Amino acid sequence: MTVDVPQLVAQAREGRPRAVARLISLVEGASPQLREVMAALAPLAGGAYVVGLTGSPGVGKSTSTSALVAAYRKAGKRVAVLAVDPSSPFSGGALLGDRVRMSDHASDPGVYIRSMATRGHLGGLAWSAPQAIRVLDAAGCDVILVETVGVGQSEVEIASQADTSVVLLAPGMGDGIQAAKAGILEIGDIYVVNKADRDGADATVRELNHMLGLGEARAPGDWRPPIVKTVAARGEGIDEVVEALDKHRTWLEKNDVLTERRARRAAREVETIAVTALRERIGDLRGDRRLGALARRIVAGEVDPYAAADELVAGLTGG
Amino acid sequence: MTVDVPQLVAQAREGRPRAVARLISLVEGASPQLREVMAALAPLAGGAYVVGLTGSPGVGKSTSTSALVAAYRKAGKRVAVLAVDPSSPFSGGALLGDRVRMSDHASDPGVYIRSMATRGHLGGLAWSAPQAIRVLDAAGCDVILVETVGVGQSEVEIASQADTSVVLLAPGMGDGIQAAKAGILEIGDIYVVNKADRDGADATVRELNHMLGLGEARAPGDWRPPIVKTVAARGEGIDEVVEALDKHRTWLEKNDVLTERRARRAAREVETIAVTALRERIGDLRGDRRLGALARRIVAGEVDPYAAADELVAGLTGG
Repeated sequence: MTVDVPQLVAQAREGRPRAVARLISLVEGASPQLREVMAALAPLAGGAYVVGLTGSPGVGKSTSTSALVAAYRKAGKRVAVLAVDPSSPFSGGALLGDRVRMSDHASDPGVYIRSMATRGHLGGLAWSAPQAIRVLDAAGCDVILVETVGVGQSEVEIASQADTSVVLLAPGMGDGIQAAKAGILEIGDIYVVNKADRDGADATVRELNHMLGLGEARAPGDWRPPIVKTVAARGEGIDEVVEALDKHRTWLEKNDVLTERRARRAAREVETIAVTALRERIGDLRGDRRLGALARRIVAGEVDPYAAADELVAGLTGG
Repeated sequence: MTVDVPQLVAQAREGRPRAVARLISLVEGASPQLREVMAALAPLAGGAYVVGLTGSPGVGKSTSTSALVAAYRKAGKRVAVLAVDPSSPFSGGALLGDRVRMSDHASDPGVYIRSMATRGHLGGLAWSAPQAIRVLDAAGCDVILVETVGVGQSEVEIASQADTSVVLLAPGMGDGIQAAKAGILEIGDIYVVNKADRDGADATVRELNHMLGLGEARAPGDWRPPIVKTVAARGEGIDEVVEALDKHRTWLEKNDVLTERRARRAAREVETIAVTALRERIGDLRGDRRLGALARRIVAGEVDPYAAADELVAGLTGG
């Protein structure tokens, strides 16, 4: 079935969740209209602020995400959540009841929630996450919260390609070491120690300070990642997180880092698409009729296999 | 160091083993002169008759190969052995002493012996074996015996892409089932039951007859794979194998199957080269300057990631 792409894009920009969902499905799969959709979105994207939230399971990512959604909604922003965390209630796991208040957001037309399977996609997460972000961006979302779990390489990469990366930790989980192992200590622009009402919160902050070398001298103008203590389940400290996010965004814009980060994200996106395209063409080589014709010319001694391969590759990639 | 390719090819055609060895090394690796060598060889190839010999370890492949070399040398043919079997004495394993008489062949300028590592090559065996065959063919060898062990998929494929495939078995090894498992029963143009002086040789022949359905009716003109009994260590039955090979070759030529088989081999060769080239280009994507420029245009909304990927792929493959 052919989709009326301009109409769908217009509806998505009005905030209709079904249109947004449809567009994401079109770009996630190998829809024949994929290119048409992407071309239509290109001039519309760039307005959204993309925040990555990552951390080990159990640190309270989803609760924090939900609290941030509430804060941004209060400020009148359109918010999207892209949940790449398989343990997230946003991605179809168990709901956490009142504390998360998912139902509030679910019925709010200013919030769009999308979960993302970590498997089964054409090119995995590296393929589908940037595509979905692009749709949400073009649809007019002001803030896109990308919730990933800090365990897999691709999840960490996705978080690191946000405009701002928030790394969440919780006290008493040996979390510093866990985080270091997962490589998420290198990507944080903002650190959040959640569940700060628990014993050991200050110790976690100290440990983090030490591991990050936050006491060391920095060049003027460098970003110094703040550490914010929160109790997300009670909404405590969330305003401070939003404030830190605003500060980081301002810093990004002032120092031309925003464009650089977005270019990096776009480069990764292009690379994934190009690699997927080349892989598909490799698969197409078998059974290609041109291959048979070339093979007969080789047998006749008219052409050597390298020249033939060049011809084949040029034909495949030029076609 | 730049090699004088025309001179090297001329020396190889005179039968100088060092020149042949040098050419094979040039085509096995990613030599900058690879293409020059392949272009120089193209019009010279096509004269050699390529015989694949495969079977499980212990059936006497090397002894049979050696006996065939002796038979072809007696007929005044130039012979090459390409040993892809890691257990073969030709490929640097333990020599079998007098029975194999490797030393005879090693000092015979009409015999060229080359062993081939099954690992570590650019594209594995599928890459290096056809390339080496091409060199030996262009060098003027009349017969190329490709000895592979019938265990790995790629080894079986190489044997199956010979002009004639000989499958070797031995009695009392549960060999029929082994061979069926390894997929080598589907590729034989000629079956050899070696060590036919042992108990159970006739049973193996019967089993083979049954598994191959050799008693069944065939269309006139179809090739009916013969089963030849040999005791290669004593040279018994080898003349019959040569006779069967001659018959098969005549049949191949009469029925235009030879060109078809060689085209299949060439197609496989081209495919491997093309796939390797595309893979290398995928690897080149990261760090490509064009990628950065495209990414910035995406961020500016001037181009969508798919159009950018197309541009990148076209640039990479056209370059």
